[in-house]
Amino acid sequence: MKAAMYYGKEDIRIEDIAEPQIRPGTVKIAPAFNGICGSDLHLFHDGPIPPAPSSDEAHPISGETLPVVLGHEFSGTVEEVGEGVEGVSVGDSVVVEPLMVDGTCPACRKGKYNLCEKMGFIGISGLGGGLSEHIVVEQRWVHPVGDMPLDQAALIEPLAVAVHAVKHSGAESGGIAVVGGAGPIGLLVAAVLKAKGLSTIVSEVSHARREKALSSGVADIVVDPVNEDLAAAVREYTAGAGADVAFDAAGVQVVVNQLLEVLGAGGRLEVVAIHTKPVELDLAAQLTMQDRSLGSSVGYAHDHADAIELVRSGKVDLAPFITSKIVVADIIEQGFHRLIENKEEEVKVLVSMA
Amino acid sequence: MKAAMYYGKEDIRIEDIAEPQIRPGTVKIAPAFNGICGSDLHLFHDGPIPPAPSSDEAHPISGETLPVVLGHEFSGTVEEVGEGVEGVSVGDSVVVEPLMVDGTCPACRKGKYNLCEKMGFIGISGLGGGLSEHIVVEQRWVHPVGDMPLDQAALIEPLAVAVHAVKHSGAESGGIAVVGGAGPIGLLVAAVLKAKGLSTIVSEVSHARREKALSSGVADIVVDPVNEDLAAAVREYTAGAGADVAFDAAGVQVVVNQLLEVLGAGGRLEVVAIHTKPVELDLAAQLTMQDRSLGSSVGYAHDHADAIELVRSGKVDLAPFITSKIVVADIIEQGFHRLIENKEEEVKVLVSMA
Repeated sequence: MKAAMYYGKEDIRIEDIAEPQIRPGTVKIAPAFNGICGSDLHLFHDGPIPPAPSSDEAHPISGETLPVVLGHEFSGTVEEVGEGVEGVSVGDSVVVEPLMVDGTCPACRKGKYNLCEKMGFIGISGLGGGLSEHIVVEQRWVHPVGDMPLDQAALIEPLAVAVHAVKHSGAESGGIAVVGGAGPIGLLVAAVLKAKGLSTIVSEVSHARREKALSSGVADIVVDPVNEDLAAAVREYTAGAGADVAFDAAGVQVVVNQLLEVLGAGGRLEVVAIHTKPVELDLAAQLTMQDRSLGSSVGYAHDHADAIELVRSGKVDLAPFITSKIVVADIIEQGFHRLIENKEEEVKVLVSMA
Repeated sequence: MKAAMYYGKEDIRIEDIAEPQIRPGTVKIAPAFNGICGSDLHLFHDGPIPPAPSSDEAHPISGETLPVVLGHEFSGTVEEVGEGVEGVSVGDSVVVEPLMVDGTCPACRKGKYNLCEKMGFIGISGLGGGLSEHIVVEQRWVHPVGDMPLDQAALIEPLAVAVHAVKHSGAESGGIAVVGGAGPIGLLVAAVLKAKGLSTIVSEVSHARREKALSSGVADIVVDPVNEDLAAAVREYTAGAGADVAFDAAGVQVVVNQLLEVLGAGGRLEVVAIHTKPVELDLAAQLTMQDRSLGSSVGYAHDHADAIELVRSGKVDLAPFITSKIVVADIIEQGFHRLIENKEEEVKVLVSMA
């Protein structure tokens, strides 16, 4: 079968590889659509870093070295179910929660499998990926999506990240949230907040992204934090009380400071970005004197069912976030390059095998 | 009447001032014992900073400039009750929640009066203080303590700080907590955690303070973080899982780093100290990749009743934390100086007028 194999920096090859075979407890899926994620961009432009294996060091769970099949944000159709599999049938539309976990480490034993010591991703660390004609996955990671369109279903994975972060933040219905950064994760966090009954203020420097936040309905108001006074806008919107919760979907110091400034008494800042540089905080002024907290989470654990329900119930509409659909032969030019060059216009680029 | 008046840096004078008169809705109290707090030490050794007034700038709520009566951690006996006061009678033992708040600011409207924009303290910002023969206080701030000894009752105020911080942390019964720093607040936080059914590991550099944490029963185990490996000790105690919650009662970067290192998956660090320098965090490694959070709070709001109940029910024993009792004439030598020179042996020094 055909698959997009990741060999390393700027090296992706579409090759013929052996078709995976069904085993007891697994589901064979024909992938439909794959979203390109920030981590795919990093792998392509910068080369492999864990949880990707290298060419001589295997991932501890998959046991695979490079090359690996790419694609971890994907939907598909069930082709075959293994012995002992119940609740999933041939022909079902499904998404894959693309994880591989140890199961015995302290985090896994607590049910927090997103924090597994050996954590890997299907489509990054081995065990196949969505950019192939077939994949076989343990039933545990297969989630039926009913009649959800398969293109939208490819966004369930990043939506689960947003669901996890919003749960971790403790954000409550009726509150007022500020989201800093309207890239794919910022937009999806705002979508989850709206679905939970919060009002949302999206702060974003890019005009195109602010427009997307408004036109998709996930922002009640948008603010340009460079040319407008975000703190003043939030004070006005909240009648002086400040925001209940803020989400840093940008991952830079200046946004952390801006968001801590807009929080009201007892507010919470939730970081959903990966900060690559240290952050300096004046704990006394920024947290202590306002009974505030700062949390951060990664990935998802037990969140896919909630993400699917938000879409199936109509509370979250993923369609506005699909900005391009391409075939795998064009993934480099129209995927990895365009997402850098045209990053303000694109949200999700979906890739299919043909 | 006699009162200890705070004039400024290293300037406290015992003077005769006018006795305050009862008004409707107020309670007149004869103070019994005053604890000396870290903020009293700062006022004495470093001079006035807000919420203390200066000699020409009045506190916005009390309207007073220096000098002011000192003493905000105090117990006493009710001498007289004003018109309309119910539930408090002459002869009752009481403590004062020593606050003055605006009542109309956004934080007050949320019930978070500890974060009042104009926040002041009785005994620091004016309106009298515990280091006097009589004080008249609005009934709102007067809490009867039943048959609790008046010396222990003087520690209800710092215990309320600990109660507030433990609530803010979300610490749950059955969890394992690490407390960094065993000064008065660290010891009281550990006491509240034990009372709530957590196991406690106290990390403290001073031998005398570690001994106090053990002998008072608030620490299950103690660790010297300089000469022992705190992270290894916590791993061993928690069977590899890490702590559920940690409290920084030291207020320095190295303790923040140590405590984040000992937290398990999903753990929470609660800062109960006032950090005077910025703290640098590697958010990705220290929070994000472990679904952790970091909170901090100040003071108390609606916490005195819980603090009193912890003592009256026998769940917290405050007696071990009273290390000296002195009279106000000796406050400088045996109070402010001894708490600096002998800080490892002393926990609370109580001062009475005579």
